[in-house]
Amino acid sequence: MKSHPSRADIPRGFAFAATACGLKKAGLDLALLTSDTAAAAAAVFTTNRVQAAPVRLSRESLKKSGHKIRGVIVNSGNANCCTGVQGIAASRKTAAKVSRTLGCRPEEILVCSTGVIGVPLRVEKILNAIPQLARNLNPHVLAFERFTRAIMTTDTRPKWAAAKCSIRGKQVRILGCAKGSGMIEPKMATMLGFLATDAAISPVLLSKALRTVVARTFNAITVDGDTSTNDTVTLLANGASGARRITSETGDYRKFCAALEKVCRCLALSIVADGEGAQRVIEVEVRGAASDYAADKIARTIANSPLVKTAFAGADPNWGRILAAAGRSGISFEPGRVDIHLAGIRVCRRGLEHAFDERVAHRKMLAKYVPVIMNLRAGNRAARVWTCDFTAEYVRINASYRT
Amino acid sequence: MKSHPSRADIPRGFAFAATACGLKKAGLDLALLTSDTAAAAAAVFTTNRVQAAPVRLSRESLKKSGHKIRGVIVNSGNANCCTGVQGIAASRKTAAKVSRTLGCRPEEILVCSTGVIGVPLRVEKILNAIPQLARNLNPHVLAFERFTRAIMTTDTRPKWAAAKCSIRGKQVRILGCAKGSGMIEPKMATMLGFLATDAAISPVLLSKALRTVVARTFNAITVDGDTSTNDTVTLLANGASGARRITSETGDYRKFCAALEKVCRCLALSIVADGEGAQRVIEVEVRGAASDYAADKIARTIANSPLVKTAFAGADPNWGRILAAAGRSGISFEPGRVDIHLAGIRVCRRGLEHAFDERVAHRKMLAKYVPVIMNLRAGNRAARVWTCDFTAEYVRINASYRT
Repeated sequence: MKSHPSRADIPRGFAFAATACGLKKAGLDLALLTSDTAAAAAAVFTTNRVQAAPVRLSRESLKKSGHKIRGVIVNSGNANCCTGVQGIAASRKTAAKVSRTLGCRPEEILVCSTGVIGVPLRVEKILNAIPQLARNLNPHVLAFERFTRAIMTTDTRPKWAAAKCSIRGKQVRILGCAKGSGMIEPKMATMLGFLATDAAISPVLLSKALRTVVARTFNAITVDGDTSTNDTVTLLANGASGARRITSETGDYRKFCAALEKVCRCLALSIVADGEGAQRVIEVEVRGAASDYAADKIARTIANSPLVKTAFAGADPNWGRILAAAGRSGISFEPGRVDIHLAGIRVCRRGLEHAFDERVAHRKMLAKYVPVIMNLRAGNRAARVWTCDFTAEYVRINASYRT
Repeated sequence: MKSHPSRADIPRGFAFAATACGLKKAGLDLALLTSDTAAAAAAVFTTNRVQAAPVRLSRESLKKSGHKIRGVIVNSGNANCCTGVQGIAASRKTAAKVSRTLGCRPEEILVCSTGVIGVPLRVEKILNAIPQLARNLNPHVLAFERFTRAIMTTDTRPKWAAAKCSIRGKQVRILGCAKGSGMIEPKMATMLGFLATDAAISPVLLSKALRTVVARTFNAITVDGDTSTNDTVTLLANGASGARRITSETGDYRKFCAALEKVCRCLALSIVADGEGAQRVIEVEVRGAASDYAADKIARTIANSPLVKTAFAGADPNWGRILAAAGRSGISFEPGRVDIHLAGIRVCRRGLEHAFDERVAHRKMLAKYVPVIMNLRAGNRAARVWTCDFTAEYVRINASYRT
């Protein structure tokens, strides 16, 4: 992926703006994304029982508007979660103010928040900033880049991705950005992700495309096993490309899904690579499982094991910890059939150590991207989960998040 | 608990010995515990699908001997796990050599190992050391203390506990020691724990007592959510106190269980306090749950959350992370009813922040033992789980365990 988006990456008919409204001590903390016309919208939200006010409101608005959305407003610095009726009121006021400013209905505006949980949101800071924010809306690359920075919390860098596909000769663009670094194990949706496309597609198919792709991308990553209370991914499709409308699961739909998956995978991996304190991305692939569920459960247990993740921090080819984590996953398998490849080196064969050069393995594990493949030899199902290593820096960041 | 056991703490009819056989780079690494006569024995083992050779052999021996055991031999420095048929052969040779030396049957000897996984055990080091080890067996405090040190791996200190109870006027002693610091979330048994009592009790009741007590003690702790492949707790009862034999669930049985629970809780908390890199013990109590399962699931999810554990490392009263962890536990509850007390301070009331002094809370959280109470107001079931904070030192220890 290029380091900066180009003008050609921006889908037609969208505009962006960001500002510093004072929720964070410093820096951009309020962002707005709009479509010139009401766009077909799909979204996935956190499955945490504790759901932030903006998640509850956006879910409601999506239904009420018939999945037709004009804009998404996002603040960082405060999650507006565990903030009670006042929290809900704050999100409602935000949507109302944006809708008045843009000249649409309140339910056509989605609201997202990210940051600390349990602290009342000073919504007047957001409300005061909205008029200027709306005036600054524009479709240029710089505005999009400011948007990607305004949604960051412990992220060390903005995350964006773009893809194109051709629908019957007309080019369609998909652009996305995301934030997330800690409290990341999206079980159904993820942190915050914002996707915009100028494709024309029915809301039902748009929702199906998003759910299918999210399962293989955002929902296949974990930083710390903690699912956020604010996880949201939105996808707006405004049809401004002029491409033929996608209304059934034909080749056009599959092309669109492939481009969408490319954007989502890139964003998901960017989140893992920017996981709190992370030095490297670990791809855990479990093959030869008896079921998809078994493969996924084992891959997730390995990917969330503190012992596995700290071993990767030290680039230590400690495959015993990987097998031990699989063993406590709750899935039944025969340890004596298991093969493990670490950074391309076979380290375990049929459950036993397979002679390998420790120094070579250590050196290969120092890479930015380290694959782990576990073959259970119990079937033909597979799953892939991405995680990052667990470093002292992770602890430093999280021991002092509020203090 | 006193810092050193006294002569009166040692149950009658038991002997201990430890030596350095060379499995560790330095220090004691082989320990033997024997009963003068065949003792009634109970044991609980790991539920990990990957089970070390000594666990598999000991399980078999316990059955074969009719739960009558003469001794337990333990090595540290190598877990003898994922070592295949040679690993099983190594454990068998060890039991055989001890039994020949003591003059009993091989199945009357239990074998335990702890240390690195996946490295072949150099069993000849153990076999060569056994004759001298057996000659050194004695019932003195110093021998027991050497035993407690020989079973350590990343532990920073030995862990022991003792209790007494009176059975119809005769004193009965229970003495125990344990090791464990990382790869700790015993789901059914735990790390290694060795319990000896001179009470007389039927094997069936002994097993029931151990299972009941372990559920409330060793199985209620977690350091990192990783269940070991070698977890074992053994309890030998040789009747040498001369106290009346316990054969039914009468008052005598309950007195014995209470004393056993005292020993096991003390050992379990010692393990958490000595958790890798730990600065403090966190007691997570979930009250007002609709079921025992719900209470336990939520308590464990909180106790294993890296975000919660790192907040405790920084003594940060970040109760939003505690509520968010509960929310992703998979248990349904109403966030708007939840109260949270942190270090004795109410920080959350009915799901909202309850005004508190951050500095006072921070200071209280710097203690060695910090209680967290979450009340769901959804029923009358409760669960308690103990964990430790997650520090940069944990990462340091585990990033370099083998290198």
